Amino acid sequence: MNFASDNWAGAHPEIAAALAREAGGFAAAYGDSELDKTVEQAFNQLFEREVAVYFVATGTAANALALAAVNRPGGVSFCHREAHMIEDECGAPEFFTHGARLAPVDGDDGKIDVNMLDAEIARFPPDFVHAGQPMAISITQATEIGTVYTQSEIKSIAAISQRHGLPLHMDGARFANALVALNLSPAEMTWKAGVDIVSFGATKNGCWCAEAVVFTRPELATNFPFIRKRAAQLFSKTRFIACQFDAYLNDDLWLDLAKQANAMAERLRQGIKQSKFARLAWATQSNEVFCFISKTTEQHLKQQGVLFHSWNLPRDKQGIEHQDEILVRLVASFATEQREVDRFVQLLD
Amino acid sequence: MNFASDNWAGAHPEIAAALAREAGGFAAAYGDSELDKTVEQAFNQLFEREVAVYFVATGTAANALALAAVNRPGGVSFCHREAHMIEDECGAPEFFTHGARLAPVDGDDGKIDVNMLDAEIARFPPDFVHAGQPMAISITQATEIGTVYTQSEIKSIAAISQRHGLPLHMDGARFANALVALNLSPAEMTWKAGVDIVSFGATKNGCWCAEAVVFTRPELATNFPFIRKRAAQLFSKTRFIACQFDAYLNDDLWLDLAKQANAMAERLRQGIKQSKFARLAWATQSNEVFCFISKTTEQHLKQQGVLFHSWNLPRDKQGIEHQDEILVRLVASFATEQREVDRFVQLLD
Amino acid sequence: MNFASDNWAGAHPEIAAALAREAGGFAAAYGDSELDKTVEQAFNQLFEREVAVYFVATGTAANALALAAVNRPGGVSFCHREAHMIEDECGAPEFFTHGARLAPVDGDDGKIDVNMLDAEIARFPPDFVHAGQPMAISITQATEIGTVYTQSEIKSIAAISQRHGLPLHMDGARFANALVALNLSPAEMTWKAGVDIVSFGATKNGCWCAEAVVFTRPELATNFPFIRKRAAQLFSKTRFIACQFDAYLNDDLWLDLAKQANAMAERLRQGIKQSKFARLAWATQSNEVFCFISKTTEQHLKQQGVLFHSWNLPRDKQGIEHQDEILVRLVASFATEQREVDRFVQLLD
Amino acid sequence: MNFASDNWAGAHPEIAAALAREAGGFAAAYGDSELDKTVEQAFNQLFEREVAVYFVATGTAANALALAAVNRPGGVSFCHREAHMIEDECGAPEFFTHGARLAPVDGDDGKIDVNMLDAEIARFPPDFVHAGQPMAISITQATEIGTVYTQSEIKSIAAISQRHGLPLHMDGARFANALVALNLSPAEMTWKAGVDIVSFGATKNGCWCAEAVVFTRPELATNFPFIRKRAAQLFSKTRFIACQFDAYLNDDLWLDLAKQANAMAERLRQGIKQSKFARLAWATQSNEVFCFISKTTEQHLKQQGVLFHSWNLPRDKQGIEHQDEILVRLVASFATEQREVDRFVQLLD
Repeated sequence: MNFASDNWAGAHPEIAAALAREAGGFAAAYGDSELDKTVEQAFNQLFEREVAVYFVATGTAANALALAAVNRPGGVSFCHREAHMIEDECGAPEFFTHGARLAPVDGDDGKIDVNMLDAEIARFPPDFVHAGQPMAISITQATEIGTVYTQSEIKSIAAISQRHGLPLHMDGARFANALVALNLSPAEMTWKAGVDIVSFGATKNGCWCAEAVVFTRPELATNFPFIRKRAAQLFSKTRFIACQFDAYLNDDLWLDLAKQANAMAERLRQGIKQSKFARLAWATQSNEVFCFISKTTEQHLKQQGVLFHSWNLPRDKQGIEHQDEILVRLVASFATEQREVDRFVQLLD
Repeated sequence: MNFASDNWAGAHPEIAAALAREAGGFAAAYGDSELDKTVEQAFNQLFEREVAVYFVATGTAANALALAAVNRPGGVSFCHREAHMIEDECGAPEFFTHGARLAPVDGDDGKIDVNMLDAEIARFPPDFVHAGQPMAISITQATEIGTVYTQSEIKSIAAISQRHGLPLHMDGARFANALVALNLSPAEMTWKAGVDIVSFGATKNGCWCAEAVVFTRPELATNFPFIRKRAAQLFSKTRFIACQFDAYLNDDLWLDLAKQANAMAERLRQGIKQSKFARLAWATQSNEVFCFISKTTEQHLKQQGVLFHSWNLPRDKQGIEHQDEILVRLVASFATEQREVDRFVQLLD
Repeated sequence: MNFASDNWAGAHPEIAAALAREAGGFAAAYGDSELDKTVEQAFNQLFEREVAVYFVATGTAANALALAAVNRPGGVSFCHREAHMIEDECGAPEFFTHGARLAPVDGDDGKIDVNMLDAEIARFPPDFVHAGQPMAISITQATEIGTVYTQSEIKSIAAISQRHGLPLHMDGARFANALVALNLSPAEMTWKAGVDIVSFGATKNGCWCAEAVVFTRPELATNFPFIRKRAAQLFSKTRFIACQFDAYLNDDLWLDLAKQANAMAERLRQGIKQSKFARLAWATQSNEVFCFISKTTEQHLKQQGVLFHSWNLPRDKQGIEHQDEILVRLVASFATEQREVDRFVQLLD
Repeated sequence: MNFASDNWAGAHPEIAAALAREAGGFAAAYGDSELDKTVEQAFNQLFEREVAVYFVATGTAANALALAAVNRPGGVSFCHREAHMIEDECGAPEFFTHGARLAPVDGDDGKIDVNMLDAEIARFPPDFVHAGQPMAISITQATEIGTVYTQSEIKSIAAISQRHGLPLHMDGARFANALVALNLSPAEMTWKAGVDIVSFGATKNGCWCAEAVVFTRPELATNFPFIRKRAAQLFSKTRFIACQFDAYLNDDLWLDLAKQANAMAERLRQGIKQSKFARLAWATQSNEVFCFISKTTEQHLKQQGVLFHSWNLPRDKQGIEHQDEILVRLVASFATEQREVDRFVQLLD
């Protein structure tokens, strides 16, 4: 029973098969193969417009280079206080932007509060050289704590970004999980709602390694080929990424995988709701479930071989009564099986 | 007939099979899986000592982060004028070292000339703050023009690096090809000859994507985990790299693949030597062959579907008489078949 | 009546005279003149030990390069939320450290709270590569809101820095004002209390431009000459800085100037305490006074030609009742005259 | 007899007087004082058009930040092989541009050869991501070896920069010396010849510390206020720079000082031409003279108290026969007196 993280799963059999199929023969390197072009077209269709798509090695690279593409000297980017960029990327966004700052914005349920965002941006008046200058806004979809921005919430943030002339970035490490939760199209969840750049993650949802930066406004990507190459993120045998995306997007595999992960999370939620040994910490919609358990229960579960991580209580939840329990995160993935979920729920009985 | 580059080949079937085999099940992410540990041990055995090994996404990343690990403010690294670092990495080494400089050193046959190296280092007297300070020496093995440093040549350069207290780095994008050409062990070609850090490349020799920075003096790697993570080069599903290296190093597969590539290059050399439509430009020992052909021959070959790149005449070869011919590079890889080589040689008849 | 900032004052006559005296003749450039050496000796005496002292152009440079000297990849430095580094340096500390982060720590009266500092550092467990690694602690003396750390408070912070192996930096843009307020020696306020690096500012206290980074542990400065030169902060005619410091430190001029500034601030405080049109916002000890006034009073003062800046209410003061008043900062300097203070106080009557 | 460097001289009495005059009173900091505005206007008049002018601390800062203003990822700037940027700035240009490279271009007499420049730029084809992309061209006026580009030579280089869409920068550390040598106006030597950005140096010509970046195309400076502040190069008491420039530009003082320096250099040249103990190495036009002397003569001169530096033979001069002599550089400045020159010439008799 492994609920540690969706990146503990391996690759879906279709992905592995694609890698095997593509292994033979010769093809142009550095993004120039036929398959690379095919996948670029697939992204255009997916987003229902011409986009600029660039493969990179990691989700951290996607986020950091997306910001690098819109970098300004003394720049300040605004993201939620618990964003992956701030908490888990070892300063990569700051490094690739030569020291641009990430300004944490608070907000309930892991989502940026629009009023707080406005107030935070107001701390950097135009031309006040001492404070630095606003540069970008970034939201995480699904968020780090398993919640999902509605399209209308995205539009509210986009309205602020447009008012200040700031590009809006979406960290989509769990893009597919949010998408199927909202039942929106990629276009609806991104550029139709005002998102300019997407870190499009597929690794957590069944690929070995498939991350891309997608510019829904390709004019923002003018220098990106040089930014990516200088960042040592241009693979030579790009086919090995392209064939993963090819299989991933083919025949809605990616949506099916995300639905499976979300459904397993939902089953976890149902089970926890019934249990007297665990309490849901807050409502989630995607493939992550957060709950409180006692230290005794924690020990019991670990002894039974259940894997999961404990989690820090988010700032906006710090009023929650939790009676010496610990907060834990349970992540479902495409590879999570129903019987594993059911065994886990049984253990909570 | 594809001699464009060894990175136009895909992956060896054993590598693809390993990826498929490993796809199932769960394993710890970010380098903590059992297989990650197994491969680390394999590197220790390979190098006959404890080394520190870190997977990264690209050869450029390996080179740039190796320098970052030994970075000094105002630092200057010395490498051959035609080094990949200088010619083909879009400034990544400079970027990851915050502007440290690559000082080109000349030398025949793509190899650093020891006297010129000494003279170049002498331009940076200790404590002369205006010029900057020496930081590292880097050699490429096999070189960009297909030649190979002998162990004794490496030792001569290492003697200089030790005299000046500079770490010696080896760009081993074609490490295996050089190794089998010299018939040395990895230990003999590296730390026993004075090499401190190796960019250990496997991508060009049959993997999809498998590059590692190997510190033969692990104490140089103290900060490297943070350097790599901040550089967005820490994969989450590290198993997908580990399983490639596992298969690659298993049962001498890697040496067999390099031998095949080198043998095909040797067969090309023999064929060209016999031809009156092509002349070997210089002696090479690894899997790259450089020759002069006329523009007519070039056109003829291209019409027959032969793929290859033209090449700039290296500085030390600029006295070579080449009668309006062009210089071309032919690269053999693990995937190059004898009948393709023979067809090519026939075309030259 | 100018209370806008101590950097609105010019230079003390002794400083101007020194510049004129030194103008003639020739002297070695780039820090090698006799006078440069003399001033270095003066710093050794001042700090009662051998220190390493480096002139730089601005206080921001002193702070940013001090951090650069102790930089680590993925590094995190801890300073008070209202620190100049965070609020007013346009990201220079992040820039010069290639993206190291400034983690804001809260605390009353503009001073780091020791427990909060401990808790903040604990968020970065050793070897947890995702979060980054602690790198330095920085305190501001006098603080941005005019308060002063006692020697015992400094020692408490130093105890934490030592426990975590972190260097302790002091932003001494108003070093002299704090020193005379505490009646300590430079040694007592710095290395005897555990401070390793000082941004030693003299500009705000009567020089045109005289800032230095002082390493009380010179071994931390090994690479600093290169760090400074690469940062374009090595003046050629260093005499022009040296002669300012020479005059500044001579015959306790610097202490006299700071005492004058502090005394004028004290006189302001006394006047405000008596006034019914202004209320002291909090106790200050150095040359800055913060008070609440009504918008009517603000307008009245401005009409009478008083210059001052309004100020954001610090986070720990946000509970203060201030009845639609605004918070303003009044800064006294060496050049502030008693009659100006008295005229200001009269206006408040 | 001090011919070591023009930065060994102090400040002209007019400059020192200006600093003393300006010392009193209060004025807005950070570039907002009346005097700052006055000097900005003076630059507009000087250049006969609206320019954007920014004070910085050093000539290295001016050069490095000028490049930072036109930075591109993977960028390559072209300058003469012996340029100060390459030889004497400890990697500052690379640092401030996050690793952009300086590509050395050869050329006789310390000046970029137009054909070689063209050939060097051609090595970076547009969109060839591996090599990087051209970013700027920089010339030094007067050059490091005392020669001066004619207006027509500048125009030839500007034609190339325009063809490639590259801004043209002029390192004017000795701007005035070149200007009076050519008898041109600032406009003629810069934007009328195609120069877009000037490092306008006054320190070497009689100021204590007065360097500025002048954008003759102000639209290139959009982000420069943030670039400068983030670089820790925004002085607080900017009056202390402004008053130096004010005095410097007033009543043609700057031209008079440069004429004096050049005249003293000319007198040196005349003397050396007559001597049998020294030979002019090449023709110079500004305030630097290069000549060959024997080691015996060197010792003799040093014993008599003459100060000067030896110099490396430039690459294009390496065919010069110099019979075991050493090459030395003699620099005249505004402070060089005729009797000192005459004493030196006598010593050569």
